Amino acid sequence: MASQVNVLGIGNAIVDVLARVDDAFLAEIGADKRSMTLIDEERAVEVYERMGPAVEMSGGSVANTIAGLAGLGGRAAFIGRVADDQLGRIFIHDLQSLGASIRLPPFNGGAPTARSHILITPDGQRTMQTYLGACAELGVQDVNERTMGDPEVVLLEGYAWDIPEGPALASEAMKVAERNGSVVALSLSDALCVDRHRDAYLDALTRHAGMVFGNESEMMALFDAATFEEAVERTSDHDALFVMTRTEKGCVVAQGSEIIVQDAYPVDEVVDATGAGDAHTAAFLHQLAIGGSLKEGAVFASRCATAVISQVGGRLDQHALANLPDP
Amino acid sequence: MASQVNVLGIGNAIVDVLARVDDAFLAEIGADKRSMTLIDEERAVEVYERMGPAVEMSGGSVANTIAGLAGLGGRAAFIGRVADDQLGRIFIHDLQSLGASIRLPPFNGGAPTARSHILITPDGQRTMQTYLGACAELGVQDVNERTMGDPEVVLLEGYAWDIPEGPALASEAMKVAERNGSVVALSLSDALCVDRHRDAYLDALTRHAGMVFGNESEMMALFDAATFEEAVERTSDHDALFVMTRTEKGCVVAQGSEIIVQDAYPVDEVVDATGAGDAHTAAFLHQLAIGGSLKEGAVFASRCATAVISQVGGRLDQHALANLPDP
Repeated sequence: MASQVNVLGIGNAIVDVLARVDDAFLAEIGADKRSMTLIDEERAVEVYERMGPAVEMSGGSVANTIAGLAGLGGRAAFIGRVADDQLGRIFIHDLQSLGASIRLPPFNGGAPTARSHILITPDGQRTMQTYLGACAELGVQDVNERTMGDPEVVLLEGYAWDIPEGPALASEAMKVAERNGSVVALSLSDALCVDRHRDAYLDALTRHAGMVFGNESEMMALFDAATFEEAVERTSDHDALFVMTRTEKGCVVAQGSEIIVQDAYPVDEVVDATGAGDAHTAAFLHQLAIGGSLKEGAVFASRCATAVISQVGGRLDQHALANLPDP
Repeated sequence: MASQVNVLGIGNAIVDVLARVDDAFLAEIGADKRSMTLIDEERAVEVYERMGPAVEMSGGSVANTIAGLAGLGGRAAFIGRVADDQLGRIFIHDLQSLGASIRLPPFNGGAPTARSHILITPDGQRTMQTYLGACAELGVQDVNERTMGDPEVVLLEGYAWDIPEGPALASEAMKVAERNGSVVALSLSDALCVDRHRDAYLDALTRHAGMVFGNESEMMALFDAATFEEAVERTSDHDALFVMTRTEKGCVVAQGSEIIVQDAYPVDEVVDATGAGDAHTAAFLHQLAIGGSLKEGAVFASRCATAVISQVGGRLDQHALANLPDP
C-alpha cells in the first residue's frame, strides 16, 4: 500500500530548552552529567531561573526520530500529548511542517506542554532536566486502531514507561501493532530508564519487539551484562534485530548470528550530542523502509548521527542533511 | 554612581522564530528578501503554517543590544512589552538571566507576545515577517522617571515609531532622558522604517539625540543621500556621534570633523546575518561605558559583529563571545 505509514512513533512530546553551561553549574543544581532526570513543575521553574539564556526547539526522543524520518522523505506519524499552549503549537508545527501525521490534538485544561532543560557542557555532552507536563497525561485511550492505523513499524520509546499509564498503553499499543501486522520497535531511551523498567522491556522484547534500538550502556543494562561484548552475545537469544550505538566507536547491528560492525564517521567537534541516537534510529529505519540492507542502514545511520552532533539541537534537519559526511 | 545603569533600551520585545528557507519560499509568500515586514496575526499564522521546522529564541533589535551589553558585563535595562504567556516568559528570562533589569511586568489580557518569523536564506541573509502582538500595546504611560531611572544612555529603536503610541512615547522618553542627564541614542532599525519616519528621526536627531546607530542604507535614507559618502558628510551638520555599519566594508564612526574608518573582520561563512548590527551597537556602547575610545569601540564592535554572523541567532551570547576574532 503506497500510502502506508513507514513508522508511527509513540512517545513524549517535548520542547527542548537548550543552554550552554559549565560543569560547575551542573554541580550547583545537583545534576549528574549526561543523565536525564524527571523533575516536577516547581523544580523546572527553579532550574530555568538559574539557567542562562536559552534556545527553544522541538525535541523528544522518538519525536526526534519521527521528525528525522519525515525530513528524509519517509511517511511518519506521531502519538504524543501536548497542551494547547504556545509550546504545544510549536511542537505540532515542527512535526507537521515536515509532513509527519500528528494523531492527537493539543489538549486543554491539563498540565502545560513538556519541556526538557538541556544543559550543554563545553565537551558537547548534554544533561537533561525534564518536566513531563502534558506528556504524563498520555493514556491507554490514546492508542487504538484509529490513532495508530497500520504502520509498517510502531516505535515505542522507553521513556513512555515512566508515565502513569505508560506500561498499560505500551502493552495496548503492542497488541494493536500485532493485530495490524506492524513490527514493534523499542527505543531504550537511557540506561537509568532501562534500570527502572528492565523486566517490562525484556517482556516486550520476548513477546512483541521485532527491533530494539539502544546505546552501549542501555544494552548492557537491559541484559545486565558486564561488557558490551556480553550484551551483543545475549542478543542472539532473541529473534529481534538490534541496533546498538557506541558513540565514537560506531555501531553494531545484530540479528541472530548476523553481526555487522560499523565504524563511526570522524567529527571535527562534538557541538551538541543531543539527538545523535534518535537521528541514528531515523536514518536506519528509513534505509530499511526504502529497501536498504542492514549494512546500508548502519552506514547511513552513522553519517546522520555525525551530522547531528556537529550542530546545536537534536533533530536531523535540513541543515544537518546538507552537512552529511561523505559515505 | 557605581550602580548607574549604562544603557536602558526601549523597543520591541520579540521572540524570533528562525527557519532556513530557499529564495523560492520568499517568492511564494511574497516577501522581499532582507526586508522587515509588519504582519497581522492572521498573516502570522499563515506564514508559520507554510514554514518548515523552526527554532525559537529571544530577539528584538534593541533587546538584542541590551542582551549583548549585559552579557559583556555592562549594566543594562529594558523597557518593552510582552504578554504573560510562554513566549513572554522566555523573553523575560533570557534578558534577566544575563543580569539585565526588566522594567515592565508581563501583561495580561492583551495580544500575545510578539514573534518575528526570520527566514534565513542559504546566503545567510534574513527576511523578517514580524507580528508585533503585545509590543503594539506599549504606551506613553510605560516611559517615566520610575521605569527609566537615570541611565547613562537611553537607546531607542526606530521600530518604536511604528507602534500606535510610538511617536508620543519616544518623545516622552527623550524628555525624561534629558531631564536626568541621559544621552539619547537612536538605532535606525531599517531603511524602510527610516523612510516611514524620516521627519521624526531628523527632529529627534536635531533636538535630542547624542548618538545615532545605523547601517549604510539607513544613513542614506535618513539624509536622503545618493551615496554613503554624502551621508557621512551630512553627519558633520550635527553634534551627535554617528556609528555607521557597512557589512563587509566595516564601519565608519563620525563626530563633527572626526571620522574613524574601521575595516570589517574576515568571516569564513555568513551563517545568519540576524543581529549583526545590534551586536555592533552593544559592543560599541560597552567600550564607551568602560572608558574606551571611539577607535577601541569601533574595533571591538566589528569583532563582535563578526562573531554573531558566524552563528545562528541574533544575540551576542556566550558562544559568540568565545569565538571573537583576534583584534
